[in-house]
Amino acid sequence: MDTERFEKQIHFILELDKEKNIFRQTHLTHGGRRENDAEHAWHLAVMTWLLSEYSNEKIDVAKTMLMVLLHDVVEIDAGDSYAYDKNAQATAHEREKKAAARLYRLLPDDEGTALKALWEEFEEGNSPEAKFAHVMDNFQPLLLNNSNGGSDWKEHGVAREQVEKRNLRTQEGSGEIWEYMQTLLDENQKKGSLR
Amino acid sequence: MDTERFEKQIHFILELDKEKNIFRQTHLTHGGRRENDAEHAWHLAVMTWLLSEYSNEKIDVAKTMLMVLLHDVVEIDAGDSYAYDKNAQATAHEREKKAAARLYRLLPDDEGTALKALWEEFEEGNSPEAKFAHVMDNFQPLLLNNSNGGSDWKEHGVAREQVEKRNLRTQEGSGEIWEYMQTLLDENQKKGSLR
Repeated sequence: MDTERFEKQIHFILELDKEKNIFRQTHLTHGGRRENDAEHAWHLAVMTWLLSEYSNEKIDVAKTMLMVLLHDVVEIDAGDSYAYDKNAQATAHEREKKAAARLYRLLPDDEGTALKALWEEFEEGNSPEAKFAHVMDNFQPLLLNNSNGGSDWKEHGVAREQVEKRNLRTQEGSGEIWEYMQTLLDENQKKGSLR
Repeated sequence: MDTERFEKQIHFILELDKEKNIFRQTHLTHGGRRENDAEHAWHLAVMTWLLSEYSNEKIDVAKTMLMVLLHDVVEIDAGDSYAYDKNAQATAHEREKKAAARLYRLLPDDEGTALKALWEEFEEGNSPEAKFAHVMDNFQPLLLNNSNGGSDWKEHGVAREQVEKRNLRTQEGSGEIWEYMQTLLDENQKKGSLR
Protein backbone atom coordinates (compact mmCIF):
# COMPACT_ATOMS: atom_id res chain seq x y z
CA MET A 1 0.00 0.00 0.00
CA ASP A 2 1.20 3.50 -0.91
CA THR A 3 0.59 5.17 2.48
CA GLU A 4 0.73 8.74 1.19
CA ARG A 5 -1.89 7.94 -1.46
CA PHE A 6 -4.13 6.21 1.07
CA GLU A 7 -3.87 9.06 3.58
CA LYS A 8 -4.98 11.51 0.89
CA GLN A 9 -8.00 9.37 0.11
CA ILE A 10 -8.93 9.14 3.79
CA HIS A 11 -8.51 12.89 4.23
CA PHE A 12 -10.93 13.52 1.34
CA ILE A 13 -13.40 10.95 2.69
CA LEU A 14 -13.48 12.69 6.07
CA GLU A 15 -13.82 16.09 4.38
CA LEU A 16 -16.84 14.74 2.45
CA ASP A 17 -18.58 14.16 5.77
CA LYS A 18 -19.26 17.92 5.92
CA GLU A 19 -21.74 17.59 3.06
CA LYS A 20 -24.15 16.03 5.57
CA ASN A 21 -24.42 19.43 7.24
CA ILE A 22 -25.29 21.44 4.13
CA PHE A 23 -29.05 21.89 4.26
CA ARG A 24 -31.28 22.58 1.28
CA GLN A 25 -34.61 24.41 1.09
CA THR A 26 -36.49 21.20 0.25
CA HIS A 27 -38.27 19.40 3.09
CA LEU A 28 -38.45 15.63 3.43
CA THR A 29 -41.77 13.89 2.69
CA HIS A 30 -44.44 14.21 5.39
CA GLY A 31 -43.26 17.76 6.01
CA GLY A 32 -40.23 16.73 8.01
CA ARG A 33 -37.03 18.65 8.43
CA ARG A 34 -35.03 20.15 5.56
CA GLU A 35 -32.98 17.76 3.45
CA ASN A 36 -29.18 17.80 3.37
CA ASP A 37 -26.94 17.53 0.32
CA ALA A 38 -25.62 14.04 1.10
CA GLU A 39 -29.01 12.36 1.40
CA HIS A 40 -30.24 14.32 -1.63
CA ALA A 41 -27.31 12.96 -3.67
CA TRP A 42 -28.03 9.43 -2.42
CA HIS A 43 -31.64 9.74 -3.54
CA LEU A 44 -30.60 10.97 -7.00
CA ALA A 45 -28.17 8.07 -7.48
CA VAL A 46 -30.84 5.46 -6.76
CA MET A 47 -33.34 7.35 -8.94
CA THR A 48 -30.82 7.38 -11.77
CA TRP A 49 -30.60 3.61 -11.67
CA LEU A 50 -34.39 3.20 -11.44
CA LEU A 51 -35.38 5.75 -14.10
CA SER A 52 -32.58 5.62 -16.69
CA GLU A 53 -34.97 4.06 -19.22
CA TYR A 54 -36.63 7.50 -19.58
CA SER A 55 -33.46 9.24 -20.73
CA ASN A 56 -33.82 10.62 -24.27
CA GLU A 57 -30.32 9.46 -25.11
CA LYS A 58 -28.55 6.29 -24.06
CA ILE A 59 -26.53 6.98 -20.92
CA ASP A 60 -23.72 5.31 -18.98
CA VAL A 61 -25.75 4.68 -15.82
CA ALA A 62 -22.77 4.11 -13.51
CA LYS A 63 -21.08 7.32 -14.68
CA THR A 64 -24.31 9.28 -14.14
CA MET A 65 -24.68 7.80 -10.65
CA LEU A 66 -21.17 8.91 -9.70
CA MET A 67 -21.89 12.33 -11.20
CA VAL A 68 -25.01 12.87 -9.07
CA LEU A 69 -23.34 11.44 -5.96
CA LEU A 70 -20.73 14.18 -6.20
CA HIS A 71 -22.55 17.06 -7.91
CA ASP A 72 -22.96 19.05 -4.68
CA VAL A 73 -19.58 18.38 -3.05
CA VAL A 74 -18.54 21.94 -3.94
CA GLU A 75 -21.23 23.21 -1.55
CA ILE A 76 -19.01 22.11 1.35
CA ASP A 77 -17.19 25.42 0.73
CA ALA A 78 -19.71 27.34 -1.37
CA GLY A 79 -22.92 26.57 0.57
CA ASP A 80 -26.30 25.76 -0.93
CA SER A 81 -27.66 28.33 -3.38
CA TYR A 82 -31.45 28.12 -3.47
CA ALA A 83 -32.73 27.59 -7.02
CA TYR A 84 -34.96 30.67 -6.80
CA ASP A 85 -32.55 33.01 -5.02
CA LYS A 86 -31.23 35.27 -7.80
CA ASN A 87 -28.41 36.82 -5.76
CA ALA A 88 -27.04 33.49 -4.58
CA GLN A 89 -27.30 32.03 -8.07
CA ALA A 90 -25.39 34.96 -9.61
CA THR A 91 -22.21 34.19 -7.69
CA ALA A 92 -22.64 30.44 -7.16
CA HIS A 93 -20.56 29.25 -10.09
CA GLU A 94 -17.48 31.29 -9.16
CA ARG A 95 -17.63 30.13 -5.54
CA GLU A 96 -18.16 26.53 -6.61
CA LYS A 97 -15.22 26.60 -9.02
CA LYS A 98 -12.92 27.66 -6.20
CA ALA A 99 -14.37 24.92 -4.00
CA ALA A 100 -13.77 22.25 -6.65
CA ALA A 101 -10.17 23.37 -7.02
CA ARG A 102 -9.53 23.11 -3.27
CA LEU A 103 -11.46 19.90 -2.61
CA TYR A 104 -10.26 17.77 -5.50
CA ARG A 105 -6.67 18.77 -4.81
CA LEU A 106 -6.93 16.77 -1.58
CA LEU A 107 -7.08 13.51 -3.57
CA PRO A 108 -4.31 11.68 -5.45
CA ASP A 109 -3.94 13.32 -8.89
CA ASP A 110 -5.60 10.59 -10.95
CA GLU A 111 -8.75 10.50 -8.82
CA GLY A 112 -8.94 14.25 -8.22
CA THR A 113 -8.58 15.03 -11.91
CA ALA A 114 -11.24 12.51 -12.92
CA LEU A 115 -13.78 13.73 -10.36
CA LYS A 116 -13.16 17.40 -11.09
CA ALA A 117 -13.70 16.73 -14.80
CA LEU A 118 -16.92 14.87 -14.00
CA TRP A 119 -18.21 17.86 -12.01
CA GLU A 120 -17.31 20.23 -14.85
CA GLU A 121 -19.18 17.97 -17.27
CA PHE A 122 -22.21 18.19 -14.97
CA GLU A 123 -21.95 21.97 -14.80
CA GLU A 124 -21.70 22.31 -18.58
CA GLY A 125 -24.75 20.07 -18.92
CA ASN A 126 -24.14 18.98 -22.49
CA SER A 127 -23.34 15.25 -22.37
CA PRO A 128 -26.23 12.73 -22.23
CA GLU A 129 -25.14 11.85 -18.67
CA ALA A 130 -25.04 15.48 -17.55
CA LYS A 131 -28.45 16.15 -19.09
CA PHE A 132 -30.01 13.21 -17.29
CA ALA A 133 -28.24 14.13 -14.02
CA HIS A 134 -29.88 17.56 -14.21
CA VAL A 135 -33.28 15.94 -14.81
CA MET A 136 -32.80 13.98 -11.58
CA ASP A 137 -31.57 17.08 -9.72
CA ASN A 138 -34.69 19.04 -10.73
CA PHE A 139 -37.22 16.21 -10.52
CA GLN A 140 -36.37 14.94 -7.02
CA PRO A 141 -37.10 18.16 -5.07
CA LEU A 142 -40.27 18.61 -7.13
CA LEU A 143 -41.41 15.11 -6.08
CA LEU A 144 -40.70 15.79 -2.40
CA ASN A 145 -42.26 19.23 -2.52
CA ASN A 146 -45.36 17.92 -4.32
CA SER A 147 -45.71 15.18 -1.69
CA ASN A 148 -45.90 18.01 0.89
CA GLY A 149 -48.60 19.89 -1.01
CA GLY A 150 -46.09 22.29 -2.60
CA SER A 151 -45.23 23.89 0.75
CA ASP A 152 -41.65 24.79 -0.26
CA TRP A 153 -42.94 26.85 -3.19
CA LYS A 154 -45.56 28.48 -0.99
CA GLU A 155 -42.96 29.38 1.64
CA HIS A 156 -40.78 31.14 -0.95
CA GLY A 157 -43.61 32.52 -3.11
CA VAL A 158 -42.32 30.77 -6.21
CA ALA A 159 -44.12 31.33 -9.53
CA ARG A 160 -44.71 28.66 -12.13
CA GLU A 161 -42.69 30.58 -14.70
CA GLN A 162 -39.67 30.44 -12.38
CA VAL A 163 -39.93 26.65 -12.22
CA GLU A 164 -40.38 26.47 -15.99
CA LYS A 165 -37.34 28.68 -16.48
CA ARG A 166 -35.21 26.54 -14.19
CA ASN A 167 -36.33 23.47 -16.12
CA LEU A 168 -35.74 24.94 -19.59
CA ARG A 169 -33.37 22.11 -20.43
CA THR A 170 -35.09 19.26 -18.61
CA GLN A 171 -36.79 18.09 -21.78
CA GLU A 172 -33.36 17.72 -23.40
CA GLY A 173 -32.64 14.99 -20.83
CA SER A 174 -36.03 13.33 -20.64
CA GLY A 175 -39.14 14.35 -22.55
CA GLU A 176 -41.20 11.81 -20.62
CA ILE A 177 -40.20 12.95 -17.15
CA TRP A 178 -40.64 16.58 -18.13
CA GLU A 179 -44.18 15.83 -19.30
CA TYR A 180 -44.95 14.19 -15.94
CA MET A 181 -43.41 17.14 -14.08
CA GLN A 182 -45.75 19.46 -15.94
CA THR A 183 -48.82 17.57 -14.71
CA LEU A 184 -47.54 18.09 -11.14
CA LEU A 185 -46.99 21.78 -11.86
CA ASP A 186 -50.54 22.06 -13.24
CA GLU A 187 -51.99 20.56 -10.07
CA ASN A 188 -49.95 22.81 -7.81
CA GLN A 189 -50.83 25.90 -9.77
CA LYS A 190 -54.52 24.95 -9.65
CA LYS A 191 -54.50 24.64 -5.88
CA GLY A 192 -52.44 27.78 -5.45
CA SER A 193 -49.17 26.39 -4.04
CA LEU A 194 -47.45 27.79 -7.11
CA ARG A 195 -48.16 31.37 -8.19
CA MET B 1 -44.55 5.78 -21.19
CA ASP B 2 -46.14 2.89 -19.29
CA THR B 3 -47.93 4.93 -16.61
CA GLU B 4 -48.52 2.03 -14.23
CA ARG B 5 -44.81 1.16 -14.31
CA PHE B 6 -43.78 4.77 -13.77
CA GLU B 7 -46.20 5.23 -10.86
CA LYS B 8 -44.71 2.18 -9.16
CA GLN B 9 -41.22 3.61 -9.55
CA ILE B 10 -42.30 6.96 -8.12
CA HIS B 11 -44.05 5.26 -5.21
CA PHE B 12 -40.84 3.39 -4.33
CA ILE B 13 -38.76 6.56 -4.69
CA LEU B 14 -41.01 8.39 -2.22
CA GLU B 15 -40.94 5.40 0.15
CA LEU B 16 -37.11 5.52 0.06
CA ASP B 17 -37.26 9.02 1.51
CA LYS B 18 -37.98 7.43 4.90
CA GLU B 19 -34.43 6.10 5.04
CA LYS B 20 -33.33 9.66 5.81
CA ASN B 21 -35.06 9.33 9.18
CA ILE B 22 -33.38 6.10 10.29
CA PHE B 23 -30.61 7.16 12.63
CA ARG B 24 -27.52 5.13 13.44
CA GLN B 25 -25.35 5.11 16.56
CA THR B 26 -22.42 6.68 14.71
CA HIS B 27 -21.90 10.41 15.07
CA LEU B 28 -20.73 12.69 12.26
CA THR B 29 -17.17 14.04 12.35
CA HIS B 30 -16.53 16.89 14.81
CA GLY B 31 -18.92 15.22 17.25
CA GLY B 32 -22.04 16.35 15.47
CA ARG B 33 -25.44 14.68 15.48
CA ARG B 34 -25.99 10.99 14.74
CA GLU B 35 -25.77 9.87 11.13
CA ASN B 36 -28.75 8.59 9.17
CA ASP B 37 -28.85 5.60 6.84
CA ALA B 38 -29.21 7.59 3.62
CA GLU B 39 -26.15 9.76 4.12
CA HIS B 40 -24.21 6.73 5.41
CA ALA B 41 -25.05 4.87 2.17
CA TRP B 42 -24.01 7.91 0.12
CA HIS B 43 -20.66 8.00 1.90
CA LEU B 44 -20.08 4.26 1.27
CA ALA B 45 -20.84 4.60 -2.45
CA VAL B 46 -18.27 7.35 -2.93
CA MET B 47 -15.76 5.44 -0.79
CA THR B 48 -16.30 2.36 -2.94
CA TRP B 49 -15.32 4.32 -6.04
CA LEU B 50 -12.30 5.90 -4.33
CA LEU B 51 -10.95 2.79 -2.60
CA SER B 52 -11.80 -0.10 -4.95
CA GLU B 53 -8.09 -0.55 -5.73
CA TYR B 54 -7.69 -2.07 -2.24
CA SER B 55 -10.16 -4.90 -2.84
CA ASN B 56 -8.47 -8.31 -2.63
CA GLU B 57 -10.43 -9.52 -5.64
CA LYS B 58 -11.37 -7.60 -8.77
CA ILE B 59 -14.84 -6.08 -8.29
CA ASP B 60 -17.53 -4.58 -10.50
CA VAL B 61 -17.36 -1.09 -8.97
CA ALA B 62 -20.75 0.09 -10.27
CA LYS B 63 -22.50 -3.00 -8.93
CA THR B 64 -20.83 -2.56 -5.54
CA MET B 65 -21.87 1.10 -5.45
CA LEU B 66 -25.51 0.17 -6.10
CA MET B 67 -25.25 -2.54 -3.44
CA VAL B 68 -24.05 -0.13 -0.75
CA LEU B 69 -26.53 2.56 -1.80
CA LEU B 70 -29.35 0.14 -1.04
CA HIS B 71 -27.93 -2.13 1.67
CA ASP B 72 -29.90 -0.44 4.48
CA VAL B 73 -33.23 0.12 2.68
CA VAL B 74 -34.73 -2.73 4.72
CA GLU B 75 -34.22 -0.62 7.85
CA ILE B 76 -37.15 1.54 6.71
CA ASP B 77 -39.31 -1.21 8.22
CA ALA B 78 -36.83 -3.08 10.42
CA GLY B 79 -35.06 -0.12 12.06
CA ASP B 80 -31.34 0.18 12.71
CA SER B 81 -29.79 -2.67 14.71
CA TYR B 82 -26.67 -1.43 16.46
CA ALA B 83 -23.66 -3.58 15.62
CA TYR B 84 -22.97 -4.30 19.30
CA ASP B 85 -26.56 -4.83 20.46
CA LYS B 86 -26.88 -8.63 20.75
CA ASN B 87 -30.67 -8.69 21.14
CA ALA B 88 -31.31 -6.48 18.15
CA GLN B 89 -28.82 -8.43 16.04
CA ALA B 90 -30.46 -11.76 16.91
CA THR B 91 -33.75 -10.84 15.23
CA ALA B 92 -32.48 -8.37 12.64
CA HIS B 93 -32.24 -10.74 9.72
CA GLU B 94 -35.82 -12.02 10.03
CA ARG B 95 -37.20 -8.49 10.29
CA GLU B 96 -35.09 -7.35 7.37
CA LYS B 97 -36.19 -10.22 5.13
CA LYS B 98 -39.82 -9.25 5.66
CA ALA B 99 -38.96 -5.65 4.91
CA ALA B 100 -37.20 -6.57 1.66
CA ALA B 101 -40.23 -8.57 0.56
CA ARG B 102 -42.59 -5.65 1.16
CA LEU B 103 -40.38 -2.87 -0.18
CA TYR B 104 -39.16 -4.46 -3.38
CA ARG B 105 -42.69 -5.56 -4.26
CA LEU B 106 -43.53 -1.87 -4.71
CA LEU B 107 -41.34 -1.75 -7.83
CA PRO B 108 -41.99 -3.17 -11.30
CA ASP B 109 -41.02 -6.88 -11.25
CA ASP B 110 -37.78 -6.60 -13.21
CA GLU B 111 -36.35 -3.86 -10.99
CA GLY B 112 -37.71 -5.26 -7.72
CA THR B 113 -36.31 -8.71 -8.41
CA ALA B 114 -32.89 -7.37 -9.36
CA LEU B 115 -32.58 -5.16 -6.29
CA LYS B 116 -33.85 -7.81 -3.88
CA ALA B 117 -31.28 -10.26 -5.28
CA LEU B 118 -28.55 -7.65 -4.86
CA TRP B 119 -29.52 -7.18 -1.20
CA GLU B 120 -29.50 -10.96 -0.65
CA GLU B 121 -26.05 -11.13 -2.22
CA PHE B 122 -24.90 -8.46 0.23
CA GLU B 123 -26.40 -10.34 3.17
CA GLU B 124 -24.74 -13.61 2.15
CA GLY B 125 -21.45 -11.77 1.83
CA ASN B 126 -19.72 -14.24 -0.45
CA SER B 127 -19.23 -12.49 -3.80
CA PRO B 128 -16.22 -10.19 -4.27
CA GLU B 129 -18.65 -7.23 -4.45
CA ALA B 130 -20.46 -8.21 -1.24
CA LYS B 131 -17.17 -8.72 0.58
CA PHE B 132 -15.93 -5.28 -0.41
CA ALA B 133 -19.32 -3.70 0.40
CA HIS B 134 -19.01 -5.09 3.94
CA VAL B 135 -15.49 -3.67 4.23
CA MET B 136 -16.91 -0.23 3.40
CA ASP B 137 -19.83 -0.73 5.81
CA ASN B 138 -17.45 -1.55 8.68
CA PHE B 139 -14.66 0.88 7.79
CA GLN B 140 -16.75 4.04 7.41
CA PRO B 141 -18.21 4.18 10.96
CA LEU B 142 -14.76 3.31 12.34
CA LEU B 143 -13.29 6.30 10.46
CA LEU B 144 -15.98 8.67 11.76
CA ASN B 145 -15.76 7.30 15.29
CA ASN B 146 -11.95 7.52 15.30
CA SER B 147 -12.17 11.14 14.08
CA ASN B 148 -14.25 11.79 17.24
CA GLY B 149 -11.72 10.17 19.56
CA GLY B 150 -13.65 6.90 19.67
CA SER B 151 -16.58 8.46 21.54
CA ASP B 152 -19.20 6.05 20.08
CA TRP B 153 -17.30 3.08 21.49
CA LYS B 154 -16.87 4.83 24.82
CA GLU B 155 -20.58 5.64 25.01
CA HIS B 156 -21.53 1.99 24.48
CA GLY B 157 -18.61 0.46 26.41
CA VAL B 158 -17.46 -1.52 23.39
CA ALA B 159 -14.50 -3.91 23.75
CA ARG B 160 -11.84 -4.42 21.13
CA GLU B 161 -12.72 -8.09 20.81
CA GLN B 162 -16.28 -7.11 19.84
CA VAL B 163 -14.94 -4.97 17.00
CA GLU B 164 -12.57 -7.76 15.95
CA LYS B 165 -15.44 -10.25 15.99
CA ARG B 166 -17.63 -7.98 13.87
CA ASN B 167 -14.78 -7.61 11.42
CA LEU B 168 -13.89 -11.31 11.22
CA ARG B 169 -14.45 -11.30 7.48
CA THR B 170 -13.13 -7.83 6.66
CA GLN B 171 -9.76 -9.22 5.63
CA GLU B 172 -11.52 -11.39 3.04
CA GLY B 173 -12.58 -8.15 1.29
CA SER B 174 -9.45 -6.11 1.79
CA GLY B 175 -6.33 -7.16 3.63
CA GLU B 176 -4.86 -3.68 3.24
CA ILE B 177 -7.82 -1.80 4.69
CA TRP B 178 -8.11 -4.32 7.54
CA GLU B 179 -4.46 -3.72 8.41
CA TYR B 180 -5.07 0.03 8.53
CA MET B 181 -8.19 -0.50 10.65
CA GLN B 182 -6.10 -2.41 13.16
CA THR B 183 -3.71 0.49 13.60
CA LEU B 184 -6.74 2.68 14.45
CA LEU B 185 -7.98 0.04 16.91
CA ASP B 186 -4.52 -0.08 18.53
CA GLU B 187 -4.55 3.68 19.06
CA ASN B 188 -8.06 3.68 20.49
CA GLN B 189 -7.31 0.83 22.82
CA LYS B 190 -4.15 2.56 24.00
CA LYS B 191 -6.01 5.73 24.89
CA GLY B 192 -8.88 3.80 26.47
CA SER B 193 -11.78 4.60 24.10
CA LEU B 194 -11.98 0.90 23.40
CA ARG B 195 -11.99 -1.57 26.27
